[in-house]
Amino acid sequence: MHFLITGGAGFLGINLCRHLLRRGHRVRVLDLVDFDYPENDRVEAFRGDVRDAGTVDRVVRDIDVVVHAAAALPLSSRAEILSTDAEGTAVVLERAFAAGVPRLVFTSSLAVFGPPFPSVIPDDFAPTPATSYGTQKTICELLLADYSRKGFVDGVGIRLPTICVRPGKPNRAASGFFSGIIREPLNGVEAVLPVPDTVRHWHASPRSAVGFLIHGAGLDTTKLGNRRSITMPGVSATVADEIEALRKVAGEKAVSLIRREPDELVMRIVSGWAESYEAKRAKELGFRSDNSFEDIIRVHIEDEMGGKIA
Amino acid sequence: MHFLITGGAGFLGINLCRHLLRRGHRVRVLDLVDFDYPENDRVEAFRGDVRDAGTVDRVVRDIDVVVHAAAALPLSSRAEILSTDAEGTAVVLERAFAAGVPRLVFTSSLAVFGPPFPSVIPDDFAPTPATSYGTQKTICELLLADYSRKGFVDGVGIRLPTICVRPGKPNRAASGFFSGIIREPLNGVEAVLPVPDTVRHWHASPRSAVGFLIHGAGLDTTKLGNRRSITMPGVSATVADEIEALRKVAGEKAVSLIRREPDELVMRIVSGWAESYEAKRAKELGFRSDNSFEDIIRVHIEDEMGGKIA
Repeated sequence: MHFLITGGAGFLGINLCRHLLRRGHRVRVLDLVDFDYPENDRVEAFRGDVRDAGTVDRVVRDIDVVVHAAAALPLSSRAEILSTDAEGTAVVLERAFAAGVPRLVFTSSLAVFGPPFPSVIPDDFAPTPATSYGTQKTICELLLADYSRKGFVDGVGIRLPTICVRPGKPNRAASGFFSGIIREPLNGVEAVLPVPDTVRHWHASPRSAVGFLIHGAGLDTTKLGNRRSITMPGVSATVADEIEALRKVAGEKAVSLIRREPDELVMRIVSGWAESYEAKRAKELGFRSDNSFEDIIRVHIEDEMGGKIA
Repeated sequence: MHFLITGGAGFLGINLCRHLLRRGHRVRVLDLVDFDYPENDRVEAFRGDVRDAGTVDRVVRDIDVVVHAAAALPLSSRAEILSTDAEGTAVVLERAFAAGVPRLVFTSSLAVFGPPFPSVIPDDFAPTPATSYGTQKTICELLLADYSRKGFVDGVGIRLPTICVRPGKPNRAASGFFSGIIREPLNGVEAVLPVPDTVRHWHASPRSAVGFLIHGAGLDTTKLGNRRSITMPGVSATVADEIEALRKVAGEKAVSLIRREPDELVMRIVSGWAESYEAKRAKELGFRSDNSFEDIIRVHIEDEMGGKIA
């Protein structure tokens, strides 16, 4: 099969690309920025903006599955709300339809939900996003559902949990510490923990996330009806659970590299996040997550560290 | 106070304008089409497109409340999804923010909800629109919530029931018969009923709808949190209830003017509509609907027929 990944320069896009190549597929990748893609004669990389219809037309030809992962970071400007994610998604939907692409998988986010939350969020909980990022994702989900309802594309929205352990350098996202307190100690480097041990969150490994997208690409969508976006399963873990899993996998020395440094701003942001999701529908549809936080750490060691702790 | 009504040429805009003038307010009206507005030195009419920032800037100056009622009809073209309602709403939000308008009331619709439905839809039911019209309204609600959360505008979304009795000529909307089987017989004219008597729907009179918008304009929004759009109360009535109310108000002669002519297409469309809503939150916030379908008919006779049946 021939895949197009928009936003392919992100770590999820690159992981997905590698996985697809291993399975023998062909991959086109489109991103705004330059990036290193795996050296392989079955991969083609394009630089361009998903908001430009001509660019999308050039890359969407003869594609079997579009994985639309291009997304804007949280925005500072109000006017950009419509002119980035939603506009790009509208163009991708329209050009995929024009090109007759059979399947479109959209990487959505659990940021479509906003507080007040129940302790476990059911699948039919109403999206009331509490961020502009979540607002954009919800708008894109609505466009995807509208195009799918009309039969213009056959769309699947994948609401991803927070990806953990996120590879690479620490970033400035408020959620960064969830990965940082695992990734840095595994590399013998100190990591800062800005929130109390009791903070609970919903995690999936990059390997699971890639698995969700692949499963979405082949899903029997007749079961979806007009509910095209699906909350993905994950591992509900507190920071204490994370630390305990790190202790089991990498020992006390790794744990000792976590330095507690409370940060009021991060605490306030994180206190608005959900703790756990039912994800019953996804499980019934065959989406599979990691079994435990220990598994999440082991996946990171296998996939990103060559199987060895530093 | 000084109101701006976008989409003011619609019957709801005109009814709202008349009501505001009677209460002593000043009103600016903006619409794409030419229209007759009430002769009054406190009303100014402008022709223009809400998608044009310059146009909106000119009319939004010194306004206390924007009632944003401009909306596109159900669309034929896919690409128009973003380029009409959502784009217009984004412009109105942005220009209202720039002008420092204290309050923005948005006319949303119960079309934000899609099947499968419970028999009574609770306030926290997830919007999964089953039409492009409903999709646009949901996107606009999301933009309104995002702007309000950031404090850029103080927005209230009013999810209107089907307006009944809708004044004027019959239109081609699938819902037209709900009003037609009352309005035409009251004028001594035959009306076609394309669905069975058992069809149940959610109605509000134009007078109630205007009342919702006025109440929204003055609402204490500190109680809304991030849930800025509110399902309005209404009268849940079957077609049989409508006919029985018509009999009580206007007698058997009026009822005899209803001609049953089943229409498969209309039946199929209407079968996807919801029957009843809880609207608990709206009632707690002080929104008041009609008491019965008889009241809805009497309101029509008073407000549109000078108090007399033909």
